[in-house]
This record gives sequence, C-alpha cells and structure tokens, in this order.
Amino acid sequence: MPTYKLTYFNITGLAEPIRYILHQSGIKFEDRRLTFEEWPQYKNDMPLGQVPVLEIDGKPHPQSRAVCRLLARQNNLAGSSNEESYKIDAVVDTIDDLRQAISQYHWEKEPAAKEKLKANVDTKLPFILQKLNDRVKKEGGYFVNGKLSWADLFYTAASEMFSGLLETDVNKDYPELRKLVEKVRSLPNIKAYIETRPKTVF
Amino acid sequence: MPTYKLTYFNITGLAEPIRYILHQSGIKFEDRRLTFEEWPQYKNDMPLGQVPVLEIDGKPHPQSRAVCRLLARQNNLAGSSNEESYKIDAVVDTIDDLRQAISQYHWEKEPAAKEKLKANVDTKLPFILQKLNDRVKKEGGYFVNGKLSWADLFYTAASEMFSGLLETDVNKDYPELRKLVEKVRSLPNIKAYIETRPKTVF
Repeated sequence: MPTYKLTYFNITGLAEPIRYILHQSGIKFEDRRLTFEEWPQYKNDMPLGQVPVLEIDGKPHPQSRAVCRLLARQNNLAGSSNEESYKIDAVVDTIDDLRQAISQYHWEKEPAAKEKLKANVDTKLPFILQKLNDRVKKEGGYFVNGKLSWADLFYTAASEMFSGLLETDVNKDYPELRKLVEKVRSLPNIKAYIETRPKTVF
Repeated sequence: MPTYKLTYFNITGLAEPIRYILHQSGIKFEDRRLTFEEWPQYKNDMPLGQVPVLEIDGKPHPQSRAVCRLLARQNNLAGSSNEESYKIDAVVDTIDDLRQAISQYHWEKEPAAKEKLKANVDTKLPFILQKLNDRVKKEGGYFVNGKLSWADLFYTAASEMFSGLLETDVNKDYPELRKLVEKVRSLPNIKAYIETRPKTVF
C-alpha cells in the first residue's frame, strides 16, 4: 500500500475533492493543512509553486483535477468506458468553470471589477446549476449513468465551497442536486470524515 | 467509422487542440467555423451554450479538454498507464492555467484591470514555460516519457495561440519547447493541416 500525504491549507477549496475521493476509497493519508503564515516557506518546494500537492510514496503530484482523476481511476470512480469517463470529465470541467467565476468574484477587491464579476456569477450560477440538475435527473440520481463517480464527489465538495463563499445554500432551488449532495454526504466514509474534519469558513 | 463534426469559430483558440488530435489520428471531420455574427443563432443549440462542441455520430460533446482526452484515449495518445495519463493531465492543466491568464488579459478592456492582468501574465508566463521546458528536457523531448501524447499536441496549439495573443514567439527563449513544437508541426498529418488551414489572427 503506497503512502499518501496531501498538502494544502486549512480550507476545503481545491483539496476537498481529493480528500473526498481518498476517504471514499478507504485510503489513509496525512492531511497536512498549512497556515497562510507558513505557506511562503513551503511554496518553493512545490513543483508548480502551488497547492494542493499529493505525495504518493514521496513523489509530489500537483494539479488538483489531474490528481482526482488519477485516484478515481485507481479506485473505480472514473467510469467504465471511454464515453463514461468523458462525461465525468465534462461535468467536472463545467463545475470548475463555475468555481473559477465564483473564486474570481470572491477574491476581487476593487469594487467596480467585483461588481462585474458578481454579474458574471449571477448569470453563470443558475445556468450551470440548472444544466447539472437536469443531468442528474436524466442520469438516474448521479451525474453519469446512475452510479457514483468522482464527478459526484467533486460536485459535493465544490458546492459546499460555493455555498460558503456566496453565503447561501447554492443547491436550495435544485432538488436533484440537493438529493445528490445529501446522498454523497451520507456515504459512510464521507459521513465519518465530515463529522470529524476541522471546521473551516469555506 | 463514426462521423465527426466540430463546431467553433474561425480561430484556433479552444478548438485547435481538438483539430490537432483529430488530424494526427487520421480522423476525417467537418471543421465547421462560425462567424461571430452567426453565433447567436447557434448558441442555444449547444449543450452548455458554448463552443467548441464535437458531434460524434450526431451526439454533441462539449468541454474542450474532456473532448481532447476522449479522442486521445481512443487513439493511443493518452498514456499507457495511470501514472502516464496523470502526468499528461497535469501538464495540460498547467498549460490551461496559463491560457486563462493570457485570455483574461487579452479580452479585458478596462485599463487598470488590464494592467493587473498583464502583471499576472508577466509573472506566470516565464515561470510556467521554464517548468515545461525543464520537463521536456528531463522526459526525453516530449512532455511525458519520451513519446508523443496529447499534451504535446495541446501545447503546440496553445503556444501558437499564446504567441498570437501576445504578439511574440513565446517559445523563443525555451529551446526544448521550441524543438518540441517544431517536431509536432513536422508530423505529416499536422504539417498537411497547417499548410491548408484558414489563416486566422490567433
């Protein structure tokens, strides 16, 4: 069994989908959470100057979605055909488009720019969530082909972050997404992790 | 043999990596290029209101990188182990991080915001290109394990776009990247495509 060590900050953010996939797959890992004060002294050790980084047997793996996909492949969460894998990837990239819009809005300080980024979120959020909701309905309660995949874990983690950043439950008007997230959060390993994870703002 | 129809604008942009992978794989496809004037009448037909979209036997496939990965898997350009596939994915996501920084800068109209985005590009561009250059050197002339993958095709297409948007040859100070791009552009199918493709600004 390889050893796993995940380095990130003490927030959900880009690392939470990795944490969810590791927990769901029953993989033990060191969940290293740096403070923002500690970060400068670690930055240069990271392959791309960024976190999250997952070390597998000491070998650093940057790029969060690529890491998720690797773990998902190794743990039967990445689809069982090329077409299923494609659908999962397309859902994840769509969720990530939304994440970028929300993050940019959240971190922007300059009022006029922030207002423009807010307008972008206000357009994108309902448009994409409706598409995702329709897909879960059509696909039988999960994003792809009626069975759990890393897209479902990714969305659950992402939507918790979106709700935190936007200070509202983003799933509230999307019954299929709400049911999906509840289902994922009730998976025994995920449930146990959620109950014990550090409380963070987002 | 399925039929393929790719819809995008008459630019390289997000579609060119898909076009490169299709051409390299010897797959015939309809390369539909909409004018920006035509776009509003097609937008609502697209699954996510965006292009590129690749129709395979009439079924629409949105999300450019997910489409690239699907085609790459089907045509032996996606690595021959989970670890190789991961490395390819991580390179592609790193290139895409840079694409986003450059695109945001290019399309921003407001001078103060544009200046900030320019500073971001000025930091990211040399940092990422140096990392990518080092990787190609270490990995034997390609991004992963001394053999052609969709990461190499993706970078070649992306760096042409970066050079067009920034009005400079972005590879000029990175000898390994320059050699890689020349090698890809000399592949017979890619060469034939480049010689006959529509001339576009970027």
